[in-house]
Amino acid sequence: MSERTARPGSLLESVKGPRDLKLMAADELPRLAAEIRDLLVSSTARTGGHLGPNLGVVELTIALHRVFDSPRDRILWDTGHQAYVHKMLTGRAGLFDRLRQEGGLSGYPSQAESEHDIIENSHASTALSYADGLAKAYKVRGEGDRSVVAVIGDGALTGGMAWEALNNIAGHKDLPLIIVVNDNGRSYSPTIGGLANHLASLRATQRYEDVLDFVKDNLTKVPLVGAPVYDALHGVKKGLKDVLAPQVMFEDLGLKYIGLVDGHDEQAVEAALRRARDFRRPVIVHVLTKKGFGYSPAENHGEDCFHSPGVFDPLTGEEKPKPHGWTNVFSQEIVRLGAERQDIVAITAAMLGPTGLIPFSEAYPDRLYDVGIAEQHALTSAAGLALGGLHPVVAVYATFLNRAFDQLLMDVALHKLPVTVVLDRAGVTGDDGASHNGMWDLSILQVVPGLAIAVPRDEPRLRELLSEAVAVDDGPTVVRFPKGPVGPEIEAVGKLGGMDVLRAGDPDVLIVSAGPMAETCMEAAGLLDAQGISATVVDPRWVKPLDEALVPAARVHKLVVVVEDNGRVGGVGDAVARMLRDADVDVPVRTYGIPQRFLDHAKRAKVLSDIGLTAQDIAREVTEAVAKRSPVLENHPAR
Amino acid sequence: MSERTARPGSLLESVKGPRDLKLMAADELPRLAAEIRDLLVSSTARTGGHLGPNLGVVELTIALHRVFDSPRDRILWDTGHQAYVHKMLTGRAGLFDRLRQEGGLSGYPSQAESEHDIIENSHASTALSYADGLAKAYKVRGEGDRSVVAVIGDGALTGGMAWEALNNIAGHKDLPLIIVVNDNGRSYSPTIGGLANHLASLRATQRYEDVLDFVKDNLTKVPLVGAPVYDALHGVKKGLKDVLAPQVMFEDLGLKYIGLVDGHDEQAVEAALRRARDFRRPVIVHVLTKKGFGYSPAENHGEDCFHSPGVFDPLTGEEKPKPHGWTNVFSQEIVRLGAERQDIVAITAAMLGPTGLIPFSEAYPDRLYDVGIAEQHALTSAAGLALGGLHPVVAVYATFLNRAFDQLLMDVALHKLPVTVVLDRAGVTGDDGASHNGMWDLSILQVVPGLAIAVPRDEPRLRELLSEAVAVDDGPTVVRFPKGPVGPEIEAVGKLGGMDVLRAGDPDVLIVSAGPMAETCMEAAGLLDAQGISATVVDPRWVKPLDEALVPAARVHKLVVVVEDNGRVGGVGDAVARMLRDADVDVPVRTYGIPQRFLDHAKRAKVLSDIGLTAQDIAREVTEAVAKRSPVLENHPAR
Repeated sequence: MSERTARPGSLLESVKGPRDLKLMAADELPRLAAEIRDLLVSSTARTGGHLGPNLGVVELTIALHRVFDSPRDRILWDTGHQAYVHKMLTGRAGLFDRLRQEGGLSGYPSQAESEHDIIENSHASTALSYADGLAKAYKVRGEGDRSVVAVIGDGALTGGMAWEALNNIAGHKDLPLIIVVNDNGRSYSPTIGGLANHLASLRATQRYEDVLDFVKDNLTKVPLVGAPVYDALHGVKKGLKDVLAPQVMFEDLGLKYIGLVDGHDEQAVEAALRRARDFRRPVIVHVLTKKGFGYSPAENHGEDCFHSPGVFDPLTGEEKPKPHGWTNVFSQEIVRLGAERQDIVAITAAMLGPTGLIPFSEAYPDRLYDVGIAEQHALTSAAGLALGGLHPVVAVYATFLNRAFDQLLMDVALHKLPVTVVLDRAGVTGDDGASHNGMWDLSILQVVPGLAIAVPRDEPRLRELLSEAVAVDDGPTVVRFPKGPVGPEIEAVGKLGGMDVLRAGDPDVLIVSAGPMAETCMEAAGLLDAQGISATVVDPRWVKPLDEALVPAARVHKLVVVVEDNGRVGGVGDAVARMLRDADVDVPVRTYGIPQRFLDHAKRAKVLSDIGLTAQDIAREVTEAVAKRSPVLENHPAR
Repeated sequence: MSERTARPGSLLESVKGPRDLKLMAADELPRLAAEIRDLLVSSTARTGGHLGPNLGVVELTIALHRVFDSPRDRILWDTGHQAYVHKMLTGRAGLFDRLRQEGGLSGYPSQAESEHDIIENSHASTALSYADGLAKAYKVRGEGDRSVVAVIGDGALTGGMAWEALNNIAGHKDLPLIIVVNDNGRSYSPTIGGLANHLASLRATQRYEDVLDFVKDNLTKVPLVGAPVYDALHGVKKGLKDVLAPQVMFEDLGLKYIGLVDGHDEQAVEAALRRARDFRRPVIVHVLTKKGFGYSPAENHGEDCFHSPGVFDPLTGEEKPKPHGWTNVFSQEIVRLGAERQDIVAITAAMLGPTGLIPFSEAYPDRLYDVGIAEQHALTSAAGLALGGLHPVVAVYATFLNRAFDQLLMDVALHKLPVTVVLDRAGVTGDDGASHNGMWDLSILQVVPGLAIAVPRDEPRLRELLSEAVAVDDGPTVVRFPKGPVGPEIEAVGKLGGMDVLRAGDPDVLIVSAGPMAETCMEAAGLLDAQGISATVVDPRWVKPLDEALVPAARVHKLVVVVEDNGRVGGVGDAVARMLRDADVDVPVRTYGIPQRFLDHAKRAKVLSDIGLTAQDIAREVTEAVAKRSPVLENHPAR
């Protein structure tokens, strides 16, 4: 278990692409699967990554590439974190030593890496819509012989857009579109809701092995397409009704159903996929897999089956302890607030652990709602909870709030409802690449009338601002913080209106620092000082609405600088500039933030350095800006 | 049919609230229903409004208010345009002469109007999520005896968030939550997809009367709760399977099902609702209604059943012809482009008629996709179509694009896909109130990397910019235009980079005009001229990315003014200001747009005047701004 890429002379090394895989004898495949699992464990142990889900799809992925002809046929992964095995089988096994490292393999499919990768992002529930579009396009272009295969986890099926797609796909009976439901019963954590109850009803009441035995003994022996399964088994004892329910439901929508298939019996999966491929119409293949399969530390890792560990010991599965992070602080504080306030309830969209809500769920099980991967519902059910007199706290990754922008605007803000949204992983997140960076929220949330946004700079401020946010009772609030460890505490040296003054300077430069950029701003101020430029640093704490005290403060400075860990377009910098313009204060403003482009994956510090969001970069540019307007500065009284 | 409010001495006049309705004898209800229909027709004939949907829910609404105890019990409407009858029965029948007029009744539920109205907005598919939250809140607060009723049209069920909610509601078996599916088979236009095929399968193959006969003869005679319906009818001929399918599907999710119920038999609806109310658990009541029922011009009006006519003749149903509008221009132009380019396909989310795509659908039926109310799927299936080599054009109201922001960002833009989004009803729309104004798009779309946005000022520019947009093959494009008639053509007097110069002035004020604000800007420039202030007016045509020529142009002016029909926060004004800052051009900038708040409903012109977006307001403020900085102006060479 120590190799970092495919071992020389291994079966895996001999697979340069799907063609080699197709030529392999069936009895070699178990060994190939074992080699893949070894590489998954040994590489993610060093790099971190989505181990559990990939251990679960080894046989499924082998079968997919033996049955379909990628890239002519198209295989889409939803979410993309299940695609490690797919990468190994499409010529990239040798690159796993640099998984999720700068310049190395992305943790998600990537068009730049391979012609076998079609879509790049990590937001859930999208594949069926892409597949619908692809299949329609091939039909219009007269390439209707190409198969389009979407592999969707059962968790991703709880997302509303998957339903929109299913409903549409069912309306187009002529498209050769194969939907593989990868049912592991627990996409991130156990799947939530009525669908999950049915999809997983058997598993929920019996042991996994019983399910597979049942499947082998019964379903796989009857012809599966054209679906006489229901008839064949009709009359079997009541308990079986639950097994068949998914079929009935999908067939109600007009979709053909093949299943259940044992996802770890590669030959059974191949057989099901071949039938689906030859059907030439929309069909669902329902595959049962076990997250973490074949690696006992993952199988025994509790509910999330090593979903996405950091660096760990491959022998024991023991993870390197994580430093005290922002999520911990929120986690503790929301439990404390929950004790004080019986009206505080918490909502997560399938991210109970990652957003730090497990302690809250244990302390107040009746006041915690996990809605599944369903951000839209999370926000609008929060609106309902608030209309009913409670104060909901919705904890979500910053990037995923984009899914519920309309709901926050129209359902929460239009009704002036007291809902607090806690955005974790805001700003540059790094390793997970473009779609995980939380660089949009401070921009798009600016347009929401009546919404207030707090950006804590350190641990005491997170505790304080969270308390202030849940005390607001006439409209929505947002509290946003980054991924990772909390930085040093930075105490205020004074107040300016409601703003914290972190450093008092002479009237050269006023630096407005958003949240955890305070550390960078303080360092930049020190560097400027060394250049003979005096800088005041203020932290507005609440960046929307901005504190009125900013206007007179800006008026007495020669340059205003705004620094934020968010896209430069439309963020706090633009808001400060607008506020000053509207107050007829024409002091020059310079704004620093993330350039408005999709960022490549790398460590957070490296990304910040690459995009120039460091104290050195800011100090250098501010020095230049001050120098440029020295004639203007001369008009002001000397300091 | 000539009265504009409830007739004196009528039954309707005697209904001051639900209490009066409950006291009414059952045999009086048909007369009440007839009076309600008369008022619906006579009032919307004068004001315009959602006539067809409300004609369909007269008996349903009467039954709801007789069975439930609003406002203690909560009744939510999805979408809110079905709530006219609800308004009449909750004390507002006398106000229908001012429906959708400034200061008069809103066309949607409104908290400000009545304690019986809970939610205000018009975006579809939200009610089940609100209801889920409300029911949970009442449980936490120990008020679990309150019923929560969500009335959802079958069209709104195609929206993904309704599915997210259903899935969650099914997971909470202890909530007294009643979902009334108002199945009229054609929410805006006929409902799309697999669900609709099933919900409406019987209607699709038989005449409406047959359906009701079938329902009366069979289903309503068997006990409905506890659902032995399936068993009772099991073995009936194959054709009936389709009728029962919705029940099976909902019950697969774990939801009890009551139906089918004839939605125009008030007593039958009451009986079903009483059973549902007493069940104290989540239950679906499936009601069949007929859009436009009881008013023959609506019933015979083709597919949309007078969904939302403008002013019309109540006797004949003849609508006042609409002036030549932006939608018409798009409608013609996309047909022309479709002939030139076989790779152009069009997508609508249940808005085929309103977005002007009917001619395209007739010309190229195989290249038009109506995905139902499912904006998320619209955008991501467009991404799939583009990945498959086509150029999709998604036509959608500006306000509804907010539903698919994440999909446009992550699924379209991240992959640099050539998708053109056409935003109709952008800017101030007026009559439909806060949730219909398209005042968000020019702000939130600014953050999308690689997206280009065109804002045509007049008819020739819409034709020209649409052609330019579909010619872009390396990323997404947006073309946005307002509701209503196209204004006068304004020809360019010159070019500045890619920008049109509409008026050349001396170096006092540079006015940057976004799209149709050109007319206002030209008028403002004339007014400024009278004050001795010379203004140049430029139209960038593409407002993202902005033309580089703006920088040198701004540098030689003393003040830059930006005018746009979009929220002031984060729009074109902020973009121009940022561009100049980034180029070290510190010429003062002043930005004019819609104030960042939710606007009350009124005529568009009145709203623009109220918010100060007129030539007079702009000219006055610019004059003041110029006067304030006259010392600065003196430093520049005299003109």
